Amino acid sequence: MRESHPWLGSTLTSKFSSTTVAMQTRLPVTRESFFKPHGGFVVGVKNLEVLRDTKEIEMTAKLYGANVCPFVHRTRLLLAEKGIEHEYVAIDLANKPDWYHEVLPSGKVPLLEHDGHRIWESDIICEYLEEAFDGPEFMPRDPGRKAEVRLLVNWGTSQLVPPFYKFLANQDRSKDGELKEQVLKVLRELNEKLGERPGPYFFAQITLADLELYPWFERMCVLRHYRDFQVPEKLSQVHAWWDAMKSRESVQKLKEEDEYFIEKYESYAVGDKVPA
Amino acid sequence: MRESHPWLGSTLTSKFSSTTVAMQTRLPVTRESFFKPHGGFVVGVKNLEVLRDTKEIEMTAKLYGANVCPFVHRTRLLLAEKGIEHEYVAIDLANKPDWYHEVLPSGKVPLLEHDGHRIWESDIICEYLEEAFDGPEFMPRDPGRKAEVRLLVNWGTSQLVPPFYKFLANQDRSKDGELKEQVLKVLRELNEKLGERPGPYFFAQITLADLELYPWFERMCVLRHYRDFQVPEKLSQVHAWWDAMKSRESVQKLKEEDEYFIEKYESYAVGDKVPA
Repeated sequence: MRESHPWLGSTLTSKFSSTTVAMQTRLPVTRESFFKPHGGFVVGVKNLEVLRDTKEIEMTAKLYGANVCPFVHRTRLLLAEKGIEHEYVAIDLANKPDWYHEVLPSGKVPLLEHDGHRIWESDIICEYLEEAFDGPEFMPRDPGRKAEVRLLVNWGTSQLVPPFYKFLANQDRSKDGELKEQVLKVLRELNEKLGERPGPYFFAQITLADLELYPWFERMCVLRHYRDFQVPEKLSQVHAWWDAMKSRESVQKLKEEDEYFIEKYESYAVGDKVPA
Repeated sequence: MRESHPWLGSTLTSKFSSTTVAMQTRLPVTRESFFKPHGGFVVGVKNLEVLRDTKEIEMTAKLYGANVCPFVHRTRLLLAEKGIEHEYVAIDLANKPDWYHEVLPSGKVPLLEHDGHRIWESDIICEYLEEAFDGPEFMPRDPGRKAEVRLLVNWGTSQLVPPFYKFLANQDRSKDGELKEQVLKVLRELNEKLGERPGPYFFAQITLADLELYPWFERMCVLRHYRDFQVPEKLSQVHAWWDAMKSRESVQKLKEEDEYFIEKYESYAVGDKVPA
């Protein structure tokens, strides 16, 4: 239960369990609704009034994404972990559908539609899913620990992701050593951070930090294939964490084969273009 | 009141009012504590046990910053708006103190120390201050609206900030027109977003989005001085919002004179180096 808020009114509709879905009728969320005084919320409420009469309440989350994208992967892992019923719309980024820019005003995947809201940016989507849905929790409630999870997500995204792609996209073989070292440096730091923990995860229990960093590890096969790079065995804490993640049902359910990534990242690795 | 959490234990100390401060004895927060299993929290609790006996409980927030930095400015505006008692440590970034990298492991300002936590990244600090302290609220409680505020902060930071500095730092006068147009484009979009609102702010009441975007408007004097650029009068919604912000006590209290910014940004504007 949530308290009512002086300037938001009651938030009766703010927390849905994943089982309240009746039918998959899509709410007409428009680009404009996002920046209206009450955001998409008013749109949602208006439509709810109409839809309630017809007993067709659209509460199913809808995620637009592409399996190749690690940022999409993050949000799908969380949807699976929390057991959130949702519709997944896979988009071929190399051959975008006509409605792409109309439906995805940000021009980016992932995009989540739910309860009259349109939300992009994977970390913002993850926090939304965490706050708006019941189910297991992946964010501590204590503000200080919450900040620690956010700092770790931020650190991982800003430190690991750029060297990963730089190493993969580099076409000057004489620079491989230096770029490989940059990836290794981050992995060593990760190993150190994990080594200070009692369990395999970054915190006492699995959090958004683990789920949001995992996608790049599933894509390490690309560095192995194109750059002969593997996460060194001696980084045992990283491997223990990786194994723990691989054993999760959510990860197994959403897993793509190495061949899929190797094919999808080919044009990037051989210097033709950014990946589809 | 907050509920206890199965894997965090009770969060008795998670919400402080700004009046619980007894003495300004600094908690020995170490870099290591950040990534320990229970984060800095355990450190905080341990020290609290000792300090409670001596009736010297350190609960005063401590912010390390530099007045020139817009990201620091964000967090100071929020501290002022919420009336959070705190200590401010101004750092001369052009002449960093010996302890700088020891105390600021991120190497960045702002950095907040509070309750055994060390937190950086201005948006993460703002969310922490919002969640950990009582006082007026600047974040909606509804998850969907919270996401909208976060998207707006993200949009502003990613869209306005890079063209602002690109225009200022550019030394090729033939490119000024194009760079000016990039800044204008964002301001026009901002004007449009604000025009859909009933009041001067981005949402029904002032939120983190207003506070986190304002600092670059106080620094617009730099673009005027070095690039003869002003926010066009016809962008009336932007001006109404800017005026509303300027009339706030927090903004007035923290205001730096135009001359201050013009001097501090000189080396950047004339192409010598990044600003101190």
